[in-house]
Amino acid sequence: MPSRYLSFRCSVPWLILLLQALLLLRSFLGFPGVSDTYSSFNSYPEFQDVNHMVIFGFGFFLMVLRRYGFSSTGFNFLLVVLGVQCSVLAEDLLVFLRGHQNAVGLESLAKAFVSVTAVVISTGAVLGRANPVQLIVMTLVELIFFYVSRYINETFLEVPECLTGMHVFLFGAYFGLALASRCPEPPPGLDKHRSTPRSELFSVLGTVFVWVFWPSFNSILPSFKMQAVLNTYLALAVSAVAAFMLSALTSKDGKFRMAQIRSAVLAGGVTISYTAQHIHHPWIAMILGLLGSVITILGAHCVQRCFNPALKLQDTSGVHFTFGLPAVLGAVAAVVLRVVEGGIDTRWNELSRLGYDAFVYIGAFCQTICTALITGLITGLILNIKLLKAVHVSKYFDDQFYWEFPHLSVGF
Amino acid sequence: MPSRYLSFRCSVPWLILLLQALLLLRSFLGFPGVSDTYSSFNSYPEFQDVNHMVIFGFGFFLMVLRRYGFSSTGFNFLLVVLGVQCSVLAEDLLVFLRGHQNAVGLESLAKAFVSVTAVVISTGAVLGRANPVQLIVMTLVELIFFYVSRYINETFLEVPECLTGMHVFLFGAYFGLALASRCPEPPPGLDKHRSTPRSELFSVLGTVFVWVFWPSFNSILPSFKMQAVLNTYLALAVSAVAAFMLSALTSKDGKFRMAQIRSAVLAGGVTISYTAQHIHHPWIAMILGLLGSVITILGAHCVQRCFNPALKLQDTSGVHFTFGLPAVLGAVAAVVLRVVEGGIDTRWNELSRLGYDAFVYIGAFCQTICTALITGLITGLILNIKLLKAVHVSKYFDDQFYWEFPHLSVGF
Amino acid sequence: MPSRYLSFRCSVPWLILLLQALLLLRSFLGFPGVSDTYSSFNSYPEFQDVNHMVIFGFGFFLMVLRRYGFSSTGFNFLLVVLGVQCSVLAEDLLVFLRGHQNAVGLESLAKAFVSVTAVVISTGAVLGRANPVQLIVMTLVELIFFYVSRYINETFLEVPECLTGMHVFLFGAYFGLALASRCPEPPPGLDKHRSTPRSELFSVLGTVFVWVFWPSFNSILPSFKMQAVLNTYLALAVSAVAAFMLSALTSKDGKFRMAQIRSAVLAGGVTISYTAQHIHHPWIAMILGLLGSVITILGAHCVQRCFNPALKLQDTSGVHFTFGLPAVLGAVAAVVLRVVEGGIDTRWNELSRLGYDAFVYIGAFCQTICTALITGLITGLILNIKLLKAVHVSKYFDDQFYWEFPHLSVGF
Repeated sequence: MPSRYLSFRCSVPWLILLLQALLLLRSFLGFPGVSDTYSSFNSYPEFQDVNHMVIFGFGFFLMVLRRYGFSSTGFNFLLVVLGVQCSVLAEDLLVFLRGHQNAVGLESLAKAFVSVTAVVISTGAVLGRANPVQLIVMTLVELIFFYVSRYINETFLEVPECLTGMHVFLFGAYFGLALASRCPEPPPGLDKHRSTPRSELFSVLGTVFVWVFWPSFNSILPSFKMQAVLNTYLALAVSAVAAFMLSALTSKDGKFRMAQIRSAVLAGGVTISYTAQHIHHPWIAMILGLLGSVITILGAHCVQRCFNPALKLQDTSGVHFTFGLPAVLGAVAAVVLRVVEGGIDTRWNELSRLGYDAFVYIGAFCQTICTALITGLITGLILNIKLLKAVHVSKYFDDQFYWEFPHLSVGF
Repeated sequence: MPSRYLSFRCSVPWLILLLQALLLLRSFLGFPGVSDTYSSFNSYPEFQDVNHMVIFGFGFFLMVLRRYGFSSTGFNFLLVVLGVQCSVLAEDLLVFLRGHQNAVGLESLAKAFVSVTAVVISTGAVLGRANPVQLIVMTLVELIFFYVSRYINETFLEVPECLTGMHVFLFGAYFGLALASRCPEPPPGLDKHRSTPRSELFSVLGTVFVWVFWPSFNSILPSFKMQAVLNTYLALAVSAVAAFMLSALTSKDGKFRMAQIRSAVLAGGVTISYTAQHIHHPWIAMILGLLGSVITILGAHCVQRCFNPALKLQDTSGVHFTFGLPAVLGAVAAVVLRVVEGGIDTRWNELSRLGYDAFVYIGAFCQTICTALITGLITGLILNIKLLKAVHVSKYFDDQFYWEFPHLSVGF
Repeated sequence: MPSRYLSFRCSVPWLILLLQALLLLRSFLGFPGVSDTYSSFNSYPEFQDVNHMVIFGFGFFLMVLRRYGFSSTGFNFLLVVLGVQCSVLAEDLLVFLRGHQNAVGLESLAKAFVSVTAVVISTGAVLGRANPVQLIVMTLVELIFFYVSRYINETFLEVPECLTGMHVFLFGAYFGLALASRCPEPPPGLDKHRSTPRSELFSVLGTVFVWVFWPSFNSILPSFKMQAVLNTYLALAVSAVAAFMLSALTSKDGKFRMAQIRSAVLAGGVTISYTAQHIHHPWIAMILGLLGSVITILGAHCVQRCFNPALKLQDTSGVHFTFGLPAVLGAVAAVVLRVVEGGIDTRWNELSRLGYDAFVYIGAFCQTICTALITGLITGLILNIKLLKAVHVSKYFDDQFYWEFPHLSVGF
């Protein structure tokens, strides 16, 4: 298909150029000045950790497919750097809508990194089945809808900002799933989406990075930083231990399964993300980490055996059970903890306030998940139009379709 | 051996579950409150460095064996996250015994990471020859004995805490050696413990991480942080230079040997660990780094040719000369520096105080090394009982015994 | 050639020993005391980032050649640790010449790391074609000349220190090129300098590290740290986006080329290095990043097709277009920005001052590039004398010439 290919060639660079020109133009017109707010944000080490985690950690975390190593890291890199620039503008707009003055600073970059995680997670769901043009369009559309959803939560439901930021996992996972349901299935004979020990090892390398830097991710927005760090760390530790335990329990002959462990060690970090700064007892964080790991491993069984085949859904790197289910659990836990904590030390006349809070939390959760599913489906339909040159199923999961290789070589 | 295998399957997850349940219970009953001490420790970047170094650095540092990549990283990860939780409890108990009030905070997590390094080092000595059940039991027993030894040093010998923490290398190496002496030898024909250029490269990756983050490790406990950082850095730099020099000098045809260099570049960090915060002249740090590298390379020759065959000992990743010998040198240097420094600027009536100090340092050193050797031997005997299902020698150094593989593949 | 080889064996370790002994002696005689200045420098996290970037990032960035992985990382490590020690002494001397008192502190280590980057870049130009003896001599000579050039800039042209430090890219690239022009060409049939997908992947890993840590590199010397971080980050992001765009535009069938992208994503960081702390408008930083990426990709085409064949030059890892051309662009941008910025808000009688400033910037730039080219040529002539045992062309790009291998294995 040379004609199709040529058009792919034509569209990618011009799309990028157009976007970058718009971003440049906006930044030229836009920011009211930067020098005065540079020094107000003093968590540079945390910012670097999150930067490293999103670009390097997730880039290598996604490097599971045996013939898709270059694309996994490369496209993740491209989408993150594009997405961060878009997010900075969206943050700027959000602040403008609230009537404040704003300037680009490390803080808005840090928030942009948190938001762009939604894109990284969605990419995982369609890994190897979408071409760069589709991915770039997805990045734009997803970030816009994510900011719309966040704006609704913050303005109409009055959810605090550090909580709405943590909806990235929920939004990213369900947006990605809805999108993936619109992608054609790969032919049954194709085995390129398998992993090899070597690709698995690079993925482990990325997972360890994500794991180590997760406390910085959960503590970059909240104000009680050290508490968020500590609770996240405990949740991650317990979920890592539980991952090994459950993997040995659920596999056929008691062996460990690396793919399961990779998903489940991160579950604690996702589960605790909403509540990390509010938990005062370490054992609650530990329990949440344990539950996150359990829901990931059990969810992986159910999702891969019942849910996905029923819906004819293919979720390449398992974002549903790695990020989606633990995020749902985390949102539920946030409501429960708010009610229990509030219920203990409030008097009678404050109970209505408590009920209102719980209602708002649940509302924000439902609004986010619905927006993600609906907009994901719509985006999936848009991405399959001819203009965007969907990849032929025989070219799925293959680096050679996108990258010039030094010289021919078999496998990764 | 299906029956044996099934029992291995049964024991790992339940052992982990039991442990984790105990840790959860303890943390539920235990900590007197956390919110007030969260903000007292302000070295979050150093904490992240040590976290990264222990989990990622050592995990990949141990990835030398060509068919044991998954297990090296995976089991290191499991043991560290389990060990850190145990250590936090032990720290808590230690503080309680001293009559203080304590709470979980970043500081106790940081101390727990330092202690758990002993477990990582001991793992290196029996790498590929112990199954996860044995390793988990070892982690528990070793941490308990390490804390007992530290308690004796701190309470009866009144050694300051930041010094006793640095006994991890000494304790870990000799505990591991004593343990390894009780493991059955691998059959002579087995060549799975060889390394390939590829596995060696991953190990270099881990070594560089450990090297870069070592100044943070040596400076996390002391109060004179910057001095500790700078001295550690100088010692590491000199020992890295000396490693290349000595490797070329001692090899047959002047070529460099990667395995030697990997050990020797880290020697400076181990040697300086006791004294990093007290040295006021850079040249002393540099000399210590040089001596550390020399003792590692010469030690490797002697240990591998004379000592190990004589004792029928197999030390898979050479922890004796990588961590043991430089730690002995460092302990000796600490005594010498204390005496020389004290001797220069004290008057006559303070000399008895100086002699007492030197005596205490030597006592702490001897007590640590004896405890390590004796408890290591006992643990080795315990680990070989039938209940713990020792691995058959033909299954040594093999990932396939523990991990489900994506599909069959030859080698790492 | 056993006799040649033996002499190589003899010379490497003794050369290292001699150097290290000199450094030790100097540090014994030298530093006027360290304890009082340890705490004055409070950017330990940035220091660690730069340390990590230079040792790990560049070490793996250079790992492109398929049979040269050990040497790329290993020799980079050796040269950096030797070079940093030499640089600390040179900094010390520079401060002494200015009549101040100085002491080794984290700040001088940080400056030493910045200077040693010149050596790392020059190594890239002769990668695989120089033996360790030649590289060590090169390190020494290059650092001496770099400090001479910096001294001239600071003393006679009165350029501020944080600007002269940033001449490392310019100096390193052109010194390396002049040096490479004196190395014999590899025989045309030799294909060892090709890369494989696997070696390319390790190189990507290193590139991502260098990219992530670049903001720390550009902000370690200046006083307006956060502004430097933010501008560098924006420039890097735009140059990464532009790298993908231009790579797809310039390749034959619209595929991405990893080697180009690796070079171009870093271009933004090099281009902005001179001006990062002075730019007040984000869009200027973004434009500079875009231009840096463009000049790298176009430069790569011109340099590899016209310039290099005409001069019979082989630049193994493309330092000319990766570091040289963007640095030239950055230097020009620094002059333009100074003039434009100055021109806007100065009165008539200050215009002569402005002209003088521009003249000084251009002078410093020309002086640096000339010194680099001339001393590089001289060093190239020195390195080819018989005493230093130049490598035979048939042994180019081969690990096996320098390293003892675990056992024979084909390729990397």
